[in-house]
Amino acid sequence: MTFTATCLTLYPEAFPGALGVSLLETARKNGIWALETVDIRSFSRHKHASVDDTPAGGGPGMVLRPDVAAAAIDSVELGSRPLIYMTPRGKPLTQARVREWAGGPGVVVFCGRFEGLDERVIEARQMEEVSIGDAVLAGGEIPAQYLIEACVRLIPGVLGKLASTEDESFEGDCLEYPHYTRPRVWEGRDIPDVLLSGDHAKVERWRREKSEEITQRRRPDLWSRYQRRDGEER
Amino acid sequence: MTFTATCLTLYPEAFPGALGVSLLETARKNGIWALETVDIRSFSRHKHASVDDTPAGGGPGMVLRPDVAAAAIDSVELGSRPLIYMTPRGKPLTQARVREWAGGPGVVVFCGRFEGLDERVIEARQMEEVSIGDAVLAGGEIPAQYLIEACVRLIPGVLGKLASTEDESFEGDCLEYPHYTRPRVWEGRDIPDVLLSGDHAKVERWRREKSEEITQRRRPDLWSRYQRRDGEER
Repeated sequence: MTFTATCLTLYPEAFPGALGVSLLETARKNGIWALETVDIRSFSRHKHASVDDTPAGGGPGMVLRPDVAAAAIDSVELGSRPLIYMTPRGKPLTQARVREWAGGPGVVVFCGRFEGLDERVIEARQMEEVSIGDAVLAGGEIPAQYLIEACVRLIPGVLGKLASTEDESFEGDCLEYPHYTRPRVWEGRDIPDVLLSGDHAKVERWRREKSEEITQRRRPDLWSRYQRRDGEER
Repeated sequence: MTFTATCLTLYPEAFPGALGVSLLETARKNGIWALETVDIRSFSRHKHASVDDTPAGGGPGMVLRPDVAAAAIDSVELGSRPLIYMTPRGKPLTQARVREWAGGPGVVVFCGRFEGLDERVIEARQMEEVSIGDAVLAGGEIPAQYLIEACVRLIPGVLGKLASTEDESFEGDCLEYPHYTRPRVWEGRDIPDVLLSGDHAKVERWRREKSEEITQRRRPDLWSRYQRRDGEER
Protein backbone atom coordinates (compact mmCIF):
# COMPACT_ATOMS: atom_id res chain seq x y z
CA MET A 1 0.00 0.00 0.00
CA THR A 2 1.41 3.35 -1.02
CA PHE A 3 1.29 6.21 1.48
CA THR A 4 -1.00 8.75 -0.20
CA ALA A 5 -1.30 12.41 0.75
CA THR A 6 -4.42 14.10 -0.62
CA CYS A 7 -4.57 17.89 -0.27
CA LEU A 8 -7.81 19.84 -0.59
CA THR A 9 -6.87 23.35 -1.58
CA LEU A 10 -7.94 26.48 -3.43
CA TYR A 11 -4.43 26.58 -4.92
CA PRO A 12 -3.50 23.18 -6.40
CA GLU A 13 -0.60 24.92 -8.15
CA ALA A 14 1.05 25.35 -4.72
CA PHE A 15 1.84 21.61 -4.88
CA PRO A 16 4.22 19.84 -4.85
CA GLY A 17 6.03 23.10 -4.00
CA ALA A 18 8.99 22.40 -1.77
CA LEU A 19 7.95 18.73 -1.59
CA GLY A 20 9.11 18.42 -5.22
CA VAL A 21 12.86 18.36 -4.56
CA SER A 22 15.58 16.02 -3.33
CA LEU A 23 14.97 12.56 -1.93
CA LEU A 24 11.22 13.10 -1.37
CA GLU A 25 10.74 13.86 -5.07
CA THR A 26 12.79 10.81 -6.06
CA ALA A 27 10.74 8.62 -3.72
CA ARG A 28 7.51 10.01 -5.17
CA LYS A 29 8.68 9.27 -8.71
CA ASN A 30 9.61 5.76 -7.56
CA GLY A 31 6.09 5.22 -6.24
CA ILE A 32 7.05 5.04 -2.54
CA TRP A 33 4.44 7.68 -1.81
CA ALA A 34 1.82 9.59 -3.79
CA LEU A 35 0.56 13.18 -3.76
CA GLU A 36 -2.89 14.21 -4.99
CA THR A 37 -4.64 17.57 -4.98
CA VAL A 38 -8.36 18.33 -5.01
CA ASP A 39 -9.39 21.81 -6.18
CA ILE A 40 -11.98 23.02 -3.67
CA ARG A 41 -13.16 25.71 -6.10
CA SER A 42 -14.36 23.10 -8.59
CA PHE A 43 -17.04 22.07 -6.06
CA SER A 44 -18.71 25.46 -6.03
CA ARG A 45 -22.19 25.51 -7.51
CA HIS A 46 -22.30 29.28 -7.29
CA LYS A 47 -21.78 31.81 -10.03
CA HIS A 48 -18.19 33.00 -10.44
CA ALA A 49 -17.23 29.76 -8.62
CA SER A 50 -17.45 31.56 -5.31
CA VAL A 51 -16.49 29.44 -2.30
CA ASP A 52 -16.73 31.92 0.57
CA ASP A 53 -19.18 34.32 2.17
CA THR A 54 -19.24 36.94 4.94
CA PRO A 55 -18.99 35.76 8.57
CA ALA A 56 -22.25 35.36 10.50
CA GLY A 57 -22.20 37.90 13.33
CA GLY A 58 -20.06 40.30 11.31
CA GLY A 59 -16.35 41.01 11.37
CA PRO A 60 -13.59 41.19 8.79
CA GLY A 61 -12.70 38.65 6.14
CA MET A 62 -14.57 35.80 4.51
CA VAL A 63 -15.44 32.28 5.62
CA LEU A 64 -15.29 29.10 3.51
CA ARG A 65 -18.83 27.85 2.87
CA PRO A 66 -19.73 24.50 4.51
CA ASP A 67 -21.55 23.13 1.44
CA VAL A 68 -18.60 23.71 -0.88
CA ALA A 69 -16.04 22.38 1.62
CA ALA A 70 -18.14 19.27 2.34
CA ALA A 71 -18.61 18.52 -1.37
CA ALA A 72 -14.84 18.65 -1.85
CA ILE A 73 -14.24 16.43 1.19
CA ASP A 74 -16.91 13.92 0.15
CA SER A 75 -15.24 13.50 -3.25
CA VAL A 76 -12.19 11.93 -1.58
CA GLU A 77 -11.98 8.27 -0.71
CA LEU A 78 -10.70 8.59 2.84
CA GLY A 79 -10.35 4.91 3.66
CA SER A 80 -8.79 4.79 7.11
CA ARG A 81 -6.79 7.96 6.54
CA PRO A 82 -7.22 10.84 9.00
CA LEU A 83 -9.00 13.97 7.73
CA ILE A 84 -6.83 16.83 8.95
CA TYR A 85 -7.65 20.53 8.91
CA MET A 86 -4.64 22.82 9.10
CA THR A 87 -5.49 25.77 11.35
CA PRO A 88 -3.73 27.85 14.01
CA ARG A 89 -6.65 26.84 16.26
CA GLY A 90 -5.61 23.18 16.12
CA LYS A 91 -3.63 20.98 18.43
CA PRO A 92 0.11 21.41 17.84
CA LEU A 93 1.62 18.70 15.66
CA THR A 94 4.03 16.43 17.49
CA GLN A 95 6.67 14.05 16.22
CA ALA A 96 4.78 11.20 17.94
CA ARG A 97 1.65 11.93 15.85
CA VAL A 98 3.78 12.17 12.72
CA ARG A 99 5.21 8.71 13.42
CA GLU A 100 1.69 7.27 13.74
CA TRP A 101 0.54 8.75 10.46
CA ALA A 102 3.76 7.81 8.65
CA GLY A 103 3.05 4.17 9.49
CA GLY A 104 -0.47 4.32 8.04
CA PRO A 105 -2.06 4.55 4.57
CA GLY A 106 -1.63 8.31 4.28
CA VAL A 107 -3.29 11.59 5.16
CA VAL A 108 -6.05 13.79 3.78
CA VAL A 109 -5.29 17.44 4.45
CA PHE A 110 -7.71 20.32 4.09
CA CYS A 111 -5.91 23.63 3.54
CA GLY A 112 -7.84 26.58 4.99
CA ARG A 113 -7.83 30.07 3.50
CA PHE A 114 -9.54 33.36 4.40
CA GLU A 115 -10.72 33.73 8.00
CA GLY A 116 -11.42 30.00 8.22
CA LEU A 117 -13.79 27.18 7.51
CA ASP A 118 -17.42 27.04 8.68
CA GLU A 119 -17.39 25.29 12.06
CA ARG A 120 -20.23 22.94 11.09
CA VAL A 121 -18.14 21.09 8.48
CA ILE A 122 -15.36 20.59 11.00
CA GLU A 123 -17.89 18.97 13.35
CA ALA A 124 -19.96 17.07 10.77
CA ARG A 125 -16.92 15.54 9.02
CA GLN A 126 -15.03 15.06 12.31
CA MET A 127 -11.99 16.87 11.04
CA GLU A 128 -8.88 16.77 13.19
CA GLU A 129 -7.65 20.33 13.69
CA VAL A 130 -3.87 20.51 13.63
CA SER A 131 -1.60 23.49 14.05
CA ILE A 132 2.03 23.91 12.97
CA GLY A 133 3.74 26.53 15.07
CA ASP A 134 2.42 29.69 16.66
CA ALA A 135 2.32 32.10 13.76
CA VAL A 136 -0.54 32.95 11.42
CA LEU A 137 -0.26 32.27 7.68
CA ALA A 138 -2.28 33.22 4.62
CA GLY A 139 -3.34 29.62 3.97
CA GLY A 140 -2.90 25.99 4.96
CA GLU A 141 -0.77 24.96 1.99
CA ILE A 142 2.65 25.44 3.65
CA PRO A 143 1.52 23.77 6.91
CA ALA A 144 0.15 20.86 4.82
CA GLN A 145 3.52 20.48 3.11
CA TYR A 146 5.23 20.64 6.51
CA LEU A 147 3.05 17.80 7.80
CA ILE A 148 3.50 15.71 4.65
CA GLU A 149 7.29 16.12 4.58
CA ALA A 150 7.48 15.17 8.26
CA CYS A 151 5.54 11.94 7.55
CA VAL A 152 7.10 10.96 4.24
CA ARG A 153 10.73 11.22 5.37
CA LEU A 154 9.98 8.47 7.92
CA ILE A 155 8.70 6.01 5.30
CA PRO A 156 11.31 3.28 4.81
CA GLY A 157 13.29 3.81 1.61
CA VAL A 158 12.75 7.55 1.35
CA LEU A 159 15.85 9.03 3.01
CA GLY A 160 18.18 6.14 2.32
CA LYS A 161 20.68 4.53 4.64
CA LEU A 162 22.88 7.56 5.20
CA ALA A 163 20.28 9.51 7.12
CA SER A 164 19.15 9.10 10.65
CA THR A 165 15.52 9.37 11.71
CA GLU A 166 15.97 8.41 15.33
CA ASP A 167 18.88 10.24 16.91
CA GLU A 168 17.37 13.72 16.49
CA SER A 169 15.41 16.56 18.05
CA PHE A 170 12.10 15.66 19.73
CA GLU A 171 12.57 11.92 19.42
CA GLY A 172 13.70 11.74 23.04
CA ASP A 173 11.92 14.94 24.18
CA CYS A 174 15.29 16.70 23.96
CA LEU A 175 16.77 18.93 21.27
CA GLU A 176 19.72 17.62 19.34
CA TYR A 177 23.37 18.18 20.30
CA PRO A 178 25.63 20.41 18.16
CA HIS A 179 27.22 19.04 15.01
CA TYR A 180 30.75 19.45 13.70
CA THR A 181 32.55 18.29 10.59
CA ARG A 182 35.71 19.06 8.58
CA PRO A 183 37.80 21.18 8.52
CA ARG A 184 39.21 20.51 11.97
CA VAL A 185 40.07 24.19 12.43
CA TRP A 186 37.92 26.81 10.74
CA GLU A 187 38.41 30.57 11.21
CA GLY A 188 40.49 29.73 14.29
CA ARG A 189 37.68 27.66 15.79
CA ASP A 190 38.39 24.02 16.73
CA ILE A 191 36.15 21.01 16.79
CA PRO A 192 35.75 20.11 20.53
CA ASP A 193 38.54 17.68 21.53
CA VAL A 194 36.20 15.07 22.93
CA LEU A 195 34.67 14.49 19.48
CA LEU A 196 38.11 13.65 18.10
CA SER A 197 39.11 11.46 21.06
CA GLY A 198 37.78 8.24 19.59
CA ASP A 199 36.28 7.43 23.00
CA HIS A 200 32.74 6.49 22.11
CA ALA A 201 31.38 6.58 25.66
CA LYS A 202 32.84 10.05 26.25
CA VAL A 203 31.35 11.31 22.98
CA GLU A 204 27.95 9.95 23.97
CA ARG A 205 28.14 11.58 27.38
CA TRP A 206 29.18 14.93 25.91
CA ARG A 207 26.34 14.85 23.39
CA ARG A 208 23.80 13.96 26.05
CA GLU A 209 24.99 16.87 28.23
CA LYS A 210 24.88 19.35 25.37
CA SER A 211 21.48 18.09 24.36
CA GLU A 212 20.11 18.58 27.88
CA GLU A 213 21.79 21.96 28.23
CA ILE A 214 20.29 23.38 25.04
CA THR A 215 16.84 21.94 25.78
CA GLN A 216 16.84 23.47 29.23
CA ARG A 217 17.87 26.88 27.89
CA ARG A 218 15.69 27.09 24.79
CA ARG A 219 12.70 24.92 25.55
CA PRO A 220 11.70 24.88 29.22
CA ASP A 221 8.43 23.22 28.09
CA LEU A 222 10.21 20.19 26.61
CA TRP A 223 12.66 20.16 29.49
CA SER A 224 10.04 19.73 32.19
CA ARG A 225 8.34 16.97 30.16
CA TYR A 226 11.72 15.26 29.74
CA GLN A 227 12.49 15.45 33.44
CA ARG A 228 9.09 14.04 34.38
CA ARG A 229 9.58 11.11 32.03
CA ASP A 230 13.11 10.55 33.23
CA GLY A 231 11.84 10.44 36.81
CA GLU A 232 9.20 7.84 35.97
CA GLU A 233 11.75 5.57 34.33
CA ARG A 234 13.99 5.52 37.38
CA MET B 1 12.32 50.01 1.01
CA THR B 2 11.09 46.65 -0.24
CA PHE B 3 10.89 43.77 2.23
CA THR B 4 13.36 41.26 0.85
CA ALA B 5 13.53 37.58 1.79
CA THR B 6 16.81 35.90 0.84
CA CYS B 7 16.92 32.11 1.18
CA LEU B 8 20.18 30.16 1.27
CA THR B 9 19.37 26.66 0.16
CA LEU B 10 20.67 23.54 -1.54
CA TYR B 11 17.39 23.45 -3.49
CA PRO B 12 16.66 26.86 -5.06
CA GLU B 13 14.01 25.12 -7.18
CA ALA B 14 11.93 24.68 -4.00
CA PHE B 15 11.17 28.42 -4.25
CA PRO B 16 8.80 30.19 -4.54
CA GLY B 17 6.89 26.92 -3.92
CA ALA B 18 3.66 27.61 -2.10
CA LEU B 19 4.68 31.28 -1.78
CA GLY B 20 3.99 31.60 -5.51
CA VAL B 21 0.19 31.67 -5.34
CA SER B 22 -2.66 33.99 -4.47
CA LEU B 23 -2.22 37.46 -2.97
CA LEU B 24 1.40 36.92 -1.93
CA GLU B 25 2.36 36.17 -5.54
CA THR B 26 0.44 39.23 -6.77
CA ALA B 27 2.18 41.38 -4.17
CA ARG B 28 5.57 40.02 -5.19
CA LYS B 29 4.86 40.78 -8.86
CA ASN B 30 3.81 44.28 -7.82
CA GLY B 31 7.12 44.80 -6.04
CA ILE B 32 5.69 44.97 -2.51
CA TRP B 33 8.19 42.33 -1.47
CA ALA B 34 11.04 40.42 -3.09
CA LEU B 35 12.28 36.83 -2.93
CA GLU B 36 15.86 35.81 -3.71
CA THR B 37 17.59 32.46 -3.48
CA VAL B 38 21.28 31.69 -3.03
CA ASP B 39 22.46 28.23 -4.07
CA ILE B 40 24.70 26.99 -1.23
CA ARG B 41 26.20 24.33 -3.50
CA SER B 42 27.71 26.94 -5.80
CA PHE B 43 30.04 27.97 -2.95
CA SER B 44 31.70 24.57 -2.71
CA ARG B 45 35.35 24.53 -3.76
CA HIS B 46 35.43 20.74 -3.53
CA LYS B 47 35.28 18.23 -6.35
CA HIS B 48 31.76 17.05 -7.21
CA ALA B 49 30.57 20.31 -5.53
CA SER B 50 30.36 18.47 -2.21
CA VAL B 51 29.01 20.57 0.67
CA ASP B 52 28.86 18.06 3.51
CA ASP B 53 31.08 15.67 5.42
CA THR B 54 30.78 13.03 8.16
CA PRO B 55 30.07 14.18 11.73
CA ALA B 56 33.03 14.58 14.08
CA GLY B 57 32.62 12.00 16.86
CA GLY B 58 30.76 9.61 14.58
CA GLY B 59 27.08 8.91 14.12
CA PRO B 60 24.70 8.72 11.19
CA GLY B 61 24.15 11.30 8.48
CA MET B 62 26.20 14.15 7.12
CA VAL B 63 26.92 17.68 8.38
CA LEU B 64 27.06 20.87 6.28
CA ARG B 65 30.66 22.15 6.13
CA PRO B 66 31.35 25.46 7.88
CA ASP B 67 33.54 26.87 5.08
CA VAL B 68 30.91 26.30 2.40
CA ALA B 69 28.05 27.61 4.54
CA ALA B 70 30.04 30.71 5.55
CA ALA B 71 30.99 31.49 1.94
CA ALA B 72 27.30 31.36 0.98
CA ILE B 73 26.31 33.57 3.92
CA ASP B 74 29.09 36.07 3.26
CA SER B 75 27.88 36.52 -0.32
CA VAL B 76 24.64 38.07 0.93
CA GLU B 77 24.31 41.73 1.78
CA LEU B 78 22.57 41.38 5.12
CA GLY B 79 22.11 45.05 5.92
CA SER B 80 20.12 45.18 9.13
CA ARG B 81 18.22 42.00 8.28
CA PRO B 82 18.32 39.09 10.77
CA LEU B 83 20.25 35.97 9.71
CA ILE B 84 17.96 33.10 10.63
CA TYR B 85 18.77 29.39 10.68
CA MET B 86 15.75 27.10 10.45
CA THR B 87 16.30 24.15 12.79
CA PRO B 88 14.22 22.07 15.19
CA ARG B 89 16.81 23.07 17.81
CA GLY B 90 15.81 26.72 17.56
CA LYS B 91 13.53 28.91 19.59
CA PRO B 92 9.92 28.46 18.51
CA LEU B 93 8.69 31.19 16.17
CA THR B 94 6.07 33.45 17.69
CA GLN B 95 3.62 35.85 16.09
CA ALA B 96 5.27 38.66 18.07
CA ARG B 97 8.64 37.94 16.42
CA VAL B 98 6.94 37.72 13.02
CA ARG B 99 5.43 41.20 13.54
CA GLU B 100 8.88 42.64 14.33
CA TRP B 101 10.45 41.17 11.21
CA ALA B 102 7.49 42.13 9.01
CA GLY B 103 8.06 45.77 9.95
CA GLY B 104 11.75 45.63 8.97
CA PRO B 105 13.77 45.42 5.74
CA GLY B 106 13.38 41.65 5.36
CA VAL B 107 14.93 38.37 6.43
CA VAL B 108 17.85 36.17 5.40
CA VAL B 109 17.01 32.52 5.96
CA PHE B 110 19.47 29.65 5.92
CA CYS B 111 17.73 26.33 5.13
CA GLY B 112 19.44 23.38 6.78
CA ARG B 113 19.65 19.89 5.28
CA PHE B 114 21.23 16.60 6.37
CA GLU B 115 21.92 16.22 10.09
CA GLY B 116 22.57 19.94 10.42
CA LEU B 117 25.03 22.76 10.05
CA ASP B 118 28.49 22.89 11.69
CA GLU B 119 28.02 24.64 15.05
CA ARG B 120 30.97 26.96 14.47
CA VAL B 121 29.23 28.84 11.62
CA ILE B 122 26.15 29.34 13.77
CA GLU B 123 28.36 30.93 16.43
CA ALA B 124 30.73 32.84 14.16
CA ARG B 125 27.96 34.38 12.05
CA GLN B 126 25.65 34.86 15.06
CA MET B 127 22.79 33.05 13.38
CA GLU B 128 19.43 33.15 15.11
CA GLU B 129 18.15 29.57 15.42
CA VAL B 130 14.40 29.40 14.85
CA SER B 131 12.09 26.42 14.96
CA ILE B 132 8.64 26.01 13.42
CA GLY B 133 6.68 23.39 15.26
CA ASP B 134 7.77 20.20 16.99
CA ALA B 135 8.25 17.82 14.12
CA VAL B 136 11.39 16.98 12.16
CA LEU B 137 11.61 17.67 8.41
CA ALA B 138 14.02 16.74 5.64
CA GLY B 139 15.13 20.35 5.15
CA GLY B 140 14.58 23.96 6.12
CA GLU B 141 12.86 25.03 2.89
CA ILE B 142 9.26 24.54 4.09
CA PRO B 143 9.96 26.18 7.48
CA ALA B 144 11.58 29.11 5.60
CA GLN B 145 8.46 29.50 3.48
CA TYR B 146 6.33 29.33 6.61
CA LEU B 147 8.31 32.16 8.20
CA ILE B 148 8.28 34.26 5.03
CA GLU B 149 4.52 33.85 4.46
CA ALA B 150 3.86 34.78 8.09
CA CYS B 151 5.87 38.00 7.66
CA VAL B 152 4.76 39.02 4.17
CA ARG B 153 1.02 38.75 4.83
CA LEU B 154 1.42 41.48 7.47
CA ILE B 155 3.02 43.96 5.06
CA PRO B 156 0.49 46.68 4.24
CA GLY B 157 -1.05 46.18 0.82
CA VAL B 158 -0.47 42.43 0.60
CA LEU B 159 -3.75 40.95 1.84
CA GLY B 160 -6.01 43.83 0.86
CA LYS B 161 -8.78 45.41 2.83
CA LEU B 162 -11.00 42.35 3.07
CA ALA B 163 -8.70 40.41 5.33
CA SER B 164 -8.02 40.82 8.98
CA THR B 165 -4.57 40.55 10.51
CA GLU B 166 -5.50 41.50 14.03
CA ASP B 167 -8.57 39.62 15.20
CA GLU B 168 -7.02 36.18 14.94
CA SER B 169 -5.29 33.31 16.72
CA PHE B 170 -2.22 34.18 18.85
CA GLU B 171 -2.64 37.95 18.50
CA GLY B 172 -4.24 38.09 21.94
CA ASP B 173 -2.64 34.90 23.27
CA CYS B 174 -5.96 33.14 22.61
CA LEU B 175 -7.05 30.92 19.74
CA GLU B 176 -9.70 32.25 17.41
CA TYR B 177 -13.45 31.70 17.92
CA PRO B 178 -15.42 29.46 15.48
CA HIS B 179 -16.59 30.88 12.15
CA TYR B 180 -19.94 30.47 10.39
CA THR B 181 -21.33 31.66 7.07
CA ARG B 182 -24.20 30.91 4.69
CA PRO B 183 -26.25 28.78 4.33
CA ARG B 184 -28.09 29.42 7.57
CA VAL B 185 -28.98 25.75 7.90
CA TRP B 186 -26.63 23.14 6.48
CA GLU B 187 -27.17 19.38 6.87
CA GLY B 188 -29.63 20.19 9.65
CA ARG B 189 -27.05 22.25 11.53
CA ASP B 190 -27.90 25.87 12.39
CA ILE B 191 -25.68 28.89 12.76
CA PRO B 192 -25.76 29.76 16.52
CA ASP B 193 -28.67 32.18 17.16
CA VAL B 194 -26.53 34.78 18.87
CA LEU B 195 -24.56 35.38 15.65
CA LEU B 196 -27.78 36.25 13.83
CA SER B 197 -29.17 38.42 16.65
CA GLY B 198 -27.66 41.66 15.40
CA ASP B 199 -26.62 42.42 18.98
CA HIS B 200 -23.00 43.39 18.56
CA ALA B 201 -22.11 43.25 22.26
CA LYS B 202 -23.63 39.78 22.63
CA VAL B 203 -21.72 38.55 19.56
CA GLU B 204 -18.48 39.89 21.00
CA ARG B 205 -19.12 38.22 24.35
CA TRP B 206 -19.98 34.89 22.73
CA ARG B 207 -16.82 35.00 20.60
CA ARG B 208 -14.66 35.87 23.58
CA GLU B 209 -16.13 32.96 25.57
CA LYS B 210 -15.63 30.48 22.73
CA SER B 211 -12.13 31.76 22.18
CA GLU B 212 -11.21 31.23 25.83
CA GLU B 213 -12.93 27.85 25.94
CA ILE B 214 -11.02 26.45 22.97
CA THR B 215 -7.70 27.90 24.16
CA GLN B 216 -8.15 26.35 27.59
CA ARG B 217 -8.98 22.94 26.10
CA ARG B 218 -6.43 22.77 23.32
CA ARG B 219 -3.57 24.93 24.49
CA PRO B 220 -3.06 24.91 28.25
CA ASP B 221 0.32 26.59 27.57
CA LEU B 222 -1.23 29.64 25.88
CA TRP B 223 -4.05 29.66 28.42
CA SER B 224 -1.80 30.07 31.44
CA ARG B 225 0.14 32.84 29.67
CA TYR B 226 -3.16 34.56 28.81
CA GLN B 227 -4.42 34.33 32.40
CA ARG B 228 -1.17 35.73 33.77
CA ARG B 229 -1.32 38.70 31.40
CA ASP B 230 -4.98 39.27 32.13
CA GLY B 231 -4.19 39.34 35.85
CA GLU B 232 -1.44 41.91 35.38
CA GLU B 233 -3.72 44.24 33.45
CA ARG B 234 -6.32 44.31 36.21
